Amino acid sequence: MQPTTRRVFLHAAGAMFVAGVGQRETTMYGVNGKMTTTPGARDAVVALLLEGTTAMPGCLSYIVAHDPANADAIWITEVWDSEASHRNSLQLPAVQAAIAKARPLIAGFSDRVETVPVGGTGLVGARGA
Amino acid sequence: MQPTTRRVFLHAAGAMFVAGVGQRETTMYGVNGKMTTTPGARDAVVALLLEGTTAMPGCLSYIVAHDPANADAIWITEVWDSEASHRNSLQLPAVQAAIAKARPLIAGFSDRVETVPVGGTGLVGARGA
Repeated sequence: MQPTTRRVFLHAAGAMFVAGVGQRETTMYGVNGKMTTTPGARDAVVALLLEGTTAMPGCLSYIVAHDPANADAIWITEVWDSEASHRNSLQLPAVQAAIAKARPLIAGFSDRVETVPVGGTGLVGARGA
Repeated sequence: MQPTTRRVFLHAAGAMFVAGVGQRETTMYGVNGKMTTTPGARDAVVALLLEGTTAMPGCLSYIVAHDPANADAIWITEVWDSEASHRNSLQLPAVQAAIAKARPLIAGFSDRVETVPVGGTGLVGARGA
């Protein structure tokens, strides 16, 4: 391989590496889990969750659900355009205010699963949505 | 209670009962779960799921995700405007075609949870969305 050819090859390989990193950076990020509240606090916590999560950059889906089998349990399913957007959301003033108000009403978390969403219906603002 | 008063009372109670039934009928319905494919078949099954679920009446969210911890596992989270819409979707030709093609590639289901979604971001076509 001649020096010029090698330089072009390495440059191309570098660009592919950067593109690869870029693709990983923009992989969607999902997290599903169950939150259990203190007895009788589910409605209050649901209201705080819905109020605190209306304007989160990069949030493609954030759905709050009752568990029909447990009056104190809430299922939350989230999709973000990247894991970084999810992490950054925890610093948003509205989210921090909701966390502060909800914390004394939360008994625990369980059934947490991280996912890599790849498509479907209901991804707000996602490419192709 | 006079007969006329009683009639009015019973009529009002009847209307409230009907309204109550109506509200239950329009309660959203959610189902979350994990599907495991035969080895190496995840991409094929994901493609079938995404193709077969694009036009399902009453479907407010249907998100397909990879499990980052298992190369053969898929997480599916669904929200419907009613449990009936979910049930009816299983009779749609596109859904039945996808099920028929996917069946030999599916090794099993687990972690199934039914929920009652109450709000959030990404409920396509839901009231207030």
